[in-house]
Amino acid sequence: QELKERLRIETGAPPKGETKKLTLKTPKGTRDYTAKEMSVRSQIFKKITGVFERHGGVTIDTPVFELKEILTGKYGEDSKLIYDLKDQGGEICSLRYDLTVPFARFVAMNNVKNIKRYQIAKVYRRDQPAMTKGRMREFYQCDFDIAGTYDAMVPDAECVRVAVEVLSQLDVGAFVVKVNHRKILDAVFEASGVPEDKVRTISSAVDKLDKQPWAEVKREMTEEKGLSSEVADRIGEYVQLRGGKELLSKLRELAPLMQTTRAQEGVHEMELFFEYAEIYNVLDQVVFDMSLARGLDYYTGIIYEAVLVEESQAAERTQAKEGDESQVRVGSIAAGGRYDTLVGMFSESQGKKATQVPCVGISFGVERIFSIVMSRMQAEQIKSNQTQVYVIAVGGGLLQERMQIATELWDNGIAAEFMYKAKAKLPNQFKACEDEQIPWAVIVGQSEIDEGVVLIKSMLAKDKSQGNGIPVKRADMVAELKQRFANVVG
Amino acid sequence: QELKERLRIETGAPPKGETKKLTLKTPKGTRDYTAKEMSVRSQIFKKITGVFERHGGVTIDTPVFELKEILTGKYGEDSKLIYDLKDQGGEICSLRYDLTVPFARFVAMNNVKNIKRYQIAKVYRRDQPAMTKGRMREFYQCDFDIAGTYDAMVPDAECVRVAVEVLSQLDVGAFVVKVNHRKILDAVFEASGVPEDKVRTISSAVDKLDKQPWAEVKREMTEEKGLSSEVADRIGEYVQLRGGKELLSKLRELAPLMQTTRAQEGVHEMELFFEYAEIYNVLDQVVFDMSLARGLDYYTGIIYEAVLVEESQAAERTQAKEGDESQVRVGSIAAGGRYDTLVGMFSESQGKKATQVPCVGISFGVERIFSIVMSRMQAEQIKSNQTQVYVIAVGGGLLQERMQIATELWDNGIAAEFMYKAKAKLPNQFKACEDEQIPWAVIVGQSEIDEGVVLIKSMLAKDKSQGNGIPVKRADMVAELKQRFANVVG
Repeated sequence: QELKERLRIETGAPPKGETKKLTLKTPKGTRDYTAKEMSVRSQIFKKITGVFERHGGVTIDTPVFELKEILTGKYGEDSKLIYDLKDQGGEICSLRYDLTVPFARFVAMNNVKNIKRYQIAKVYRRDQPAMTKGRMREFYQCDFDIAGTYDAMVPDAECVRVAVEVLSQLDVGAFVVKVNHRKILDAVFEASGVPEDKVRTISSAVDKLDKQPWAEVKREMTEEKGLSSEVADRIGEYVQLRGGKELLSKLRELAPLMQTTRAQEGVHEMELFFEYAEIYNVLDQVVFDMSLARGLDYYTGIIYEAVLVEESQAAERTQAKEGDESQVRVGSIAAGGRYDTLVGMFSESQGKKATQVPCVGISFGVERIFSIVMSRMQAEQIKSNQTQVYVIAVGGGLLQERMQIATELWDNGIAAEFMYKAKAKLPNQFKACEDEQIPWAVIVGQSEIDEGVVLIKSMLAKDKSQGNGIPVKRADMVAELKQRFANVVG
Repeated sequence: QELKERLRIETGAPPKGETKKLTLKTPKGTRDYTAKEMSVRSQIFKKITGVFERHGGVTIDTPVFELKEILTGKYGEDSKLIYDLKDQGGEICSLRYDLTVPFARFVAMNNVKNIKRYQIAKVYRRDQPAMTKGRMREFYQCDFDIAGTYDAMVPDAECVRVAVEVLSQLDVGAFVVKVNHRKILDAVFEASGVPEDKVRTISSAVDKLDKQPWAEVKREMTEEKGLSSEVADRIGEYVQLRGGKELLSKLRELAPLMQTTRAQEGVHEMELFFEYAEIYNVLDQVVFDMSLARGLDYYTGIIYEAVLVEESQAAERTQAKEGDESQVRVGSIAAGGRYDTLVGMFSESQGKKATQVPCVGISFGVERIFSIVMSRMQAEQIKSNQTQVYVIAVGGGLLQERMQIATELWDNGIAAEFMYKAKAKLPNQFKACEDEQIPWAVIVGQSEIDEGVVLIKSMLAKDKSQGNGIPVKRADMVAELKQRFANVVG
């Protein structure tokens, strides 16, 4: 009896006699995607993949969970959002929080020297879900990263070009790509006199400037974070600067800033960036925004964030209650930057000499893009199947005949369906064909069988002349259909 | 100081001064896929998806984890292999164990009445990994299921047809699809006199007949499971039967078996199955194997399993040490069956009247298929990128010129790469182009710029006549390239 009970617990069965009432839902912050939604999502992925491949991207796959220690210390305050697996004996693992850290682990572990890789996969964050804003606990990221030792800003500018190509192709509306440079930001803090141990937290405050007025940010710096008012004001003079290439000339004239090596390096790199961005035809979309800071620890160079313009303005009007600056922004649909030391951290941890593999990348938040695209479509318009032909019997049954026709179509690579009923009513068959938006019907009745023909009917053509369908010799059915498919496409 | 320490622990940072030595690996039973492997895997998925869509399949997506209670009590003894998420406050969740239970949950939750859905996604089992056999803790399943109230065996036979189409397309070698029927199996146990409470465990023993001789299975039944020798022998007479359609006539003559309602229903359905399987041209691949039992609880009708023929023989020769019969078999590459009550269990659990949505499906274990396909390929032959053109500069630099050409190619939908160096050596550029198997080079030097031309060179053509490349007006570059691409395809 005791053994039985132990077995019950082990197999997870409910106690005897107890019919447990299930909660029929997906876990908080997660959702299903229906066939129509998947059809739209696949189109989005296809476009994104197309751009990534146009830039030489190859894809890799990594496990959905990593050893916990791989993720430790990479995400700053957001580490608390990491999903852990239960310790069921063996290794301690966590679900991946993004695709960047697993990518860096992959590069270090496999001694990859250079790769342009893209990865479209789900990541996991124990965040407060905001479904309406497209913020989920399980969501897709579409990442494109270039790893390798190359000349300054060449791959960086290409990542921004990739962002512009993707967002233009997806037709999500007007957007800008804000860019900044970690070295310039650090130089700003250095030149303003921010103590080294306060740099991170002050950086977080600065990053809120897209949602809060300067007065509010200054208050946080001084009252909450103990910065002196003068230091805050000096920061304020820098980080409220926004503009294009000309801003760099302006920075060059700011002597206190340009005395720091960091500023010199950062400004030089940004000059190169703007030079390349012009060749890549993306200057119109790029805004140099000195308040852009990005939450993650691992960035070392240029950082960027693509923001929908309307959305961004809307966000400014709404109250920005979300305290955590490292959250995905309301209007942010893609973000990234350069991280030159992450791979080295992994290879170094092996006790080996650190092999630096500099990286730069861009990550698209596809759930937001999906919401935007989906909201523009009408559900009825979305065809989720690929079926070309519905096989219909006139006069009741003929199940075997329908099966035979379907077999012949399948054998010839034609997607075909029929009603899984021995006796199928004609109106029901036509309704199924229409409901599923199947473009062609092959119709057969006893008289057609006797005459050795089938009727082919276009379900989309308004042409009344085809009547119940055009009779075609049974032996010519496949060839006739293929010709009709080709004509529609051509 | 204390606050700092608390913050450190919360953010998961290592204690100060401690450089923790990381283990640079993926968790046990999981693996990365390189770009070349992904290229092969994508081809496999594409073929499988093609077959699924040819049969009217649409795809859905469900979260990678479910509420734990959704999975509870569905997998028999294998429930111990379920990965749980750590309780970090909130709901108790587990990683999905298969795609079938989440699919049934989806159907019940969304009140779906009928759907042909496919899903290609990862599932998770805390099993002892056997990488060489392709058995992993994280692995892909490719599932095709037909849900809806239809006439007997029509969708069932189509699932077997789908299995045959997929395995033929993937060219994995000779295979058979073993079929059996749960009702016949239950009737065998009933007619043989197996006590009701022993049916499951005896069924497990029977399922091992593909790896063990009858004597061994009988010993397990009698010595380990306490069945009388006579009962075991009666079972043995039935479950060692194997054959084609003709086996059904033989069963019809076995009076004690056919006295049970279950046997009558099962045999009738199997007769229909064979009738349809003949129309679907899959009789050659189908074997009626009365020892096939399948481990999972939820099957209610036909069950089937596709087995590689060579592998299956190899497996018979090796020792079958794996005690758990519900494991994926060595030679098993696809399996499934009918489960008519699973959706109803979910809808019923809601306190609502159970809505039965009968289902039948097939699941492909793609990791095995991947190993087979991969072992036949040579790594060098696999092209993992889609790049069509490599832009090469003669005489050192010309970085901006190369960028400009690439931009024009990207603008016109052509996948292009170039070396991310201001000064790129010619041999290095050609080597990169060859290493990446890029078929076309666009070559430019100062003299070409001056003349307003570029050189187009086929990297695959052995044709020496093209020399350093065919000069083409810069303005005609895109059109010329597109024409060349078309010629190669055509």
